[in-house]
Amino acid sequence: MSSPTTTPLPDVPTRRVLVEAVRPNVEGGRFPVRRVVGESVRVTADVFADSHDRVAAAVRSRPVGHDDWFESPMEVVNPGLDGWAGEFRVSSMGRWEYQVQAWIDHFTTWREDLRKKAAADVDVESHLAAGAILLKGMVGRRRTTSHTRVRDAAKQLTDTSLDRGTRVGVGLDDGLAGHVRQVDPRTHATESDPLEVDVDRVRARFSSWYELFPRSLGAPGEHGTLRDVVDQLPRVADMGFDILYLPPIHPIGRTHRKGRNNAVTAGPDDLGSPWAIGAEEGGHLAVHPDLGTVDDLRDLVTIAREDFGIDVALDIAFQCSPDHPWVTEHPEWFRMRPDGSIQYAENPPKKYEDIYPINFETTDPEGLWNALLEVMQYWIDQGVRVFRVDNPHTKSFRFWEWAITELKRTTPELILLAEAFSRPRVMEGLAKRGFNQSYSYFTWREAKWELEEYLRYLTDTDVAEYLRPNFWPNTPDILPSHLQFGGRNMFVQRLLMAATMTSNFGIYGPAFELQQSLARPDHDEYLDNEKYQLRNWDLDDPDSLAPLIARINRIRRDHTALQSTRNLHLHATDSDSMLAYSKKDPDNGDSVLVIVSLDTQWRHGSWVHLDLGALGIGDDQWFLVDDRLTEQRFHWRGGSQYVELDPSLPAHVFAVHPQ
Amino acid sequence: MSSPTTTPLPDVPTRRVLVEAVRPNVEGGRFPVRRVVGESVRVTADVFADSHDRVAAAVRSRPVGHDDWFESPMEVVNPGLDGWAGEFRVSSMGRWEYQVQAWIDHFTTWREDLRKKAAADVDVESHLAAGAILLKGMVGRRRTTSHTRVRDAAKQLTDTSLDRGTRVGVGLDDGLAGHVRQVDPRTHATESDPLEVDVDRVRARFSSWYELFPRSLGAPGEHGTLRDVVDQLPRVADMGFDILYLPPIHPIGRTHRKGRNNAVTAGPDDLGSPWAIGAEEGGHLAVHPDLGTVDDLRDLVTIAREDFGIDVALDIAFQCSPDHPWVTEHPEWFRMRPDGSIQYAENPPKKYEDIYPINFETTDPEGLWNALLEVMQYWIDQGVRVFRVDNPHTKSFRFWEWAITELKRTTPELILLAEAFSRPRVMEGLAKRGFNQSYSYFTWREAKWELEEYLRYLTDTDVAEYLRPNFWPNTPDILPSHLQFGGRNMFVQRLLMAATMTSNFGIYGPAFELQQSLARPDHDEYLDNEKYQLRNWDLDDPDSLAPLIARINRIRRDHTALQSTRNLHLHATDSDSMLAYSKKDPDNGDSVLVIVSLDTQWRHGSWVHLDLGALGIGDDQWFLVDDRLTEQRFHWRGGSQYVELDPSLPAHVFAVHPQ
Repeated sequence: MSSPTTTPLPDVPTRRVLVEAVRPNVEGGRFPVRRVVGESVRVTADVFADSHDRVAAAVRSRPVGHDDWFESPMEVVNPGLDGWAGEFRVSSMGRWEYQVQAWIDHFTTWREDLRKKAAADVDVESHLAAGAILLKGMVGRRRTTSHTRVRDAAKQLTDTSLDRGTRVGVGLDDGLAGHVRQVDPRTHATESDPLEVDVDRVRARFSSWYELFPRSLGAPGEHGTLRDVVDQLPRVADMGFDILYLPPIHPIGRTHRKGRNNAVTAGPDDLGSPWAIGAEEGGHLAVHPDLGTVDDLRDLVTIAREDFGIDVALDIAFQCSPDHPWVTEHPEWFRMRPDGSIQYAENPPKKYEDIYPINFETTDPEGLWNALLEVMQYWIDQGVRVFRVDNPHTKSFRFWEWAITELKRTTPELILLAEAFSRPRVMEGLAKRGFNQSYSYFTWREAKWELEEYLRYLTDTDVAEYLRPNFWPNTPDILPSHLQFGGRNMFVQRLLMAATMTSNFGIYGPAFELQQSLARPDHDEYLDNEKYQLRNWDLDDPDSLAPLIARINRIRRDHTALQSTRNLHLHATDSDSMLAYSKKDPDNGDSVLVIVSLDTQWRHGSWVHLDLGALGIGDDQWFLVDDRLTEQRFHWRGGSQYVELDPSLPAHVFAVHPQ
Repeated sequence: MSSPTTTPLPDVPTRRVLVEAVRPNVEGGRFPVRRVVGESVRVTADVFADSHDRVAAAVRSRPVGHDDWFESPMEVVNPGLDGWAGEFRVSSMGRWEYQVQAWIDHFTTWREDLRKKAAADVDVESHLAAGAILLKGMVGRRRTTSHTRVRDAAKQLTDTSLDRGTRVGVGLDDGLAGHVRQVDPRTHATESDPLEVDVDRVRARFSSWYELFPRSLGAPGEHGTLRDVVDQLPRVADMGFDILYLPPIHPIGRTHRKGRNNAVTAGPDDLGSPWAIGAEEGGHLAVHPDLGTVDDLRDLVTIAREDFGIDVALDIAFQCSPDHPWVTEHPEWFRMRPDGSIQYAENPPKKYEDIYPINFETTDPEGLWNALLEVMQYWIDQGVRVFRVDNPHTKSFRFWEWAITELKRTTPELILLAEAFSRPRVMEGLAKRGFNQSYSYFTWREAKWELEEYLRYLTDTDVAEYLRPNFWPNTPDILPSHLQFGGRNMFVQRLLMAATMTSNFGIYGPAFELQQSLARPDHDEYLDNEKYQLRNWDLDDPDSLAPLIARINRIRRDHTALQSTRNLHLHATDSDSMLAYSKKDPDNGDSVLVIVSLDTQWRHGSWVHLDLGALGIGDDQWFLVDDRLTEQRFHWRGGSQYVELDPSLPAHVFAVHPQ
């Protein structure tokens, strides 16, 4: 016979409870889930133990670094599958952690057995005595109300001057159970590995973006400045936007500068693309002299925030023009060609000679990474709290994870929107690593099935735990063909969908509200794009969509249901051209139902089949739907309703009121 | 402005490739996946990098503790979702580990760009020069064939005595690409965290169990012995079984011994239940004197293995009768009642006074765990390599994980069958922790939808990666009502399904082959159960199912397709009483199609709609189906076929041959 093993036992071998499959988690805890201040996290887990002893479980949560846990009870939600659930709220920005604690609930086990024995009228003396020992073991000499109450009960259980029924009653008393829950030392409890939550400010979840080229804000023919942007703030605020995003404000390179409409060579007066960053006037830490100074930027940021509640967002585009100071100071941050020159961007056979990409396989990662971090920290130091990051997927993912973690440690209110129009895994990879908003495929999703499939992906899968989509009908780079050919009705339809499907949305203006639809031939890109030249905008055009934009943003502010994306619920309709979806705020009951016709040419009608449960309405209950766009009201009963929409205003945005 | 950060960069900041979602994994690698020697593991992962550079990936695998990795290439299987796949085989028992390695494939990136530039007829001199530098950087001074070949190519690329076309041809040459793959140093490669495979012997995946009470093997009225079991080996082998499982062979307690048919008090001659383990003659390390000695057991094990290829499986039941030596030697391993006596098993108001459960909250976990481990090691030392573990879910999960890991370290051929008829998470929890076979719900699944749903759960979910089901139509504890009332036809139907649905199956005999159907009133349990008394079996009964059992076990041995469970594929039929499923061996192409009628009373016909792709048959291809039970053969073409089955032999077990 072999000699006994000498392998050590695991820590706390007497732990009998298992806690598995704790959710939400992103890759088993490799990344945090994402919430905003005040939001709740519903936690589920499989909790079970050997034998038939009862188990109990709780969710524990705390800001990372705090000593004490907050605790919320968990309850069985699926006994056959050992499914438990609980919930906690995150009340401050920064990283939180949570875990499930579970333990054998000896008292409840004893109590259930007592109940069965009493019902079967068998002898319970031994059982009552065992209960007394169990309770005494829990209280020791401590003197809180609960401890005293439990100690008294322990005495009564074996007090033979009391009759059997009285003593059984003591053991089964609900009040006692509550006190025991307080004093149970939870011996041999099991805790799951902590998982993390990255808690952002509310604007990370609910924001309305307006993109604007300052260069076009001057008097006709003159270059606009950051001071001109200040003058735009009332207009932007009136439309209801709370983030004003400016393309790069840095000096623009002259070598290989692109001309108007992306011409390969620039004329002498051409301004070049703001994304060709860096000139003799400076690089990523400088302001283009025609726009103003760093002081001007700081003033703009301050006035926007203090007077209008608007965040000014800067563009972070980590690439350099050939004239950028880094090119001579740090050639090792770029790729060298065999002849010693620096490699420009290429997508063979196309060449982008005005842009040098950063080489993240550099021999000097330490210097490079810190320089890039310093750029973001510099603008944070000027008061900026929102960045739109240009093509983050062409930079090292590991860099972003490191940099964002670093920045958010001291500036937890930071919001970073990832402009990665790339494959799903790439976009998810950036969101996991710290980007708290992401551009989306919305811009190209047109058919009902495409939109519904995409919304399910964004709201019904694990992706919803960490990726916050931001829907843009247009950008300076993208004028989708439906906006080129769909007319005003299409602009309205895309606006209303973007603003109600996701709680974060944005437009590139004034091109959007002025319904600019002319594209460069064979490109889904604007003709006479502000990326390469000044434009003069007639902001007083009576046909502008500004009033409708103001209206939908007003509705978004009025209805907290629209201030979240993950709460979206799709409803059936009989038509491939009619979409229905609703959102509900579980905290205040606010409920919004949106019905959209995709037909931009003809009046369109369809039966809509509402999932009344998702709206909080009973099957036979009357309810009022109040269209916040038109003030139309309907009294409805039952889930199937006929709806007709005119292409000029192709959506109902109903507030739903049970009656 | 803030000073630059001092946070250190991550290890190897220049790693640009991400490897995520590596599968298979059980809870992100917390537990191993399960395979047998010779089986393959198909590995999938999401692999991507920043920018548009090409990536390459490989699966690396090795027995844990070995220095060198085996490597298999991975290929893109879903470009839009960055899905990659590869495969490796495990060639020895024990723990293996695997990981995905991925790197920027600079050569392929360069080569694709060269192809595009050449096609566009733009200048390639600089590109060829860059390629030469890239290749020279890979080879250094090493002198393998590949290194030399790559070095030569690097020279040719910039050899201006060659014309442009020749040099482009050198760069695009497939042979060169193969050599580069060999020499690429994979600078900045990313490796995923290693995941593990627990590799068992083949019998863990493919086994036929026969359970037998030795006590009933004596002359009429006499107690059988382990030597009588030796005499049964030819019969068991003729029926095609390869695991012979004996209920506990230890001394049986006398205190509170149960009588025949589970009577609360035993008569003076009653034998008691073998699961009430322990008496003055000894506990878990002793053999019941009426059965023989430890030497007899060792002889049985040796003869069974050497002469018949049969594993003798013992029962591990960690519980004690009140007479077990541990009760006096180690009262701290049990639960104490207030009066100082030991707590017997209870399910109030029912009492099981003949059984003391182990208390895994003992104050002496070290002593208890080692004693239990020693029991298993002792029987391993007698030659036993298979255990059927009684109610493992009423013992500590942490104990099993520790003990099984410990035992398999020195005895990797160990097979443990978990007898946990419990909830899914509990059964999965045991399989994750080392049990390499599991009893199943098959015994109670009767309707087509129940069987199909259960088979999908077992073969189409992650559970298939670690839980190997073992289907039993009956056990000494369970005589399901369909066997009580369904007659011989039902026994045949249940046998054929158990033997063809899962590669591991078993019966409790001779009760099964003799179609014992009498139950104790109001119980789904045998009348005059061998658990409590001797039975005399007429093994020569001409109505015995032994010949059919031998036949189906022969078919299981002939067809490797039936020797796996995860390969099961369900096919549609038009009838709720007809099931169709197939299995295919990907290595040798062996293909078996099973069609079962659930109707035990009437001849039943239905259209069957085969998924021909799963059978490896073309849509218009003729194929032969050869019923291995009846030798009937049909030539079929097309997926929809009409099948009729007689209740006396309610299944076709077709070998499928494309023609």
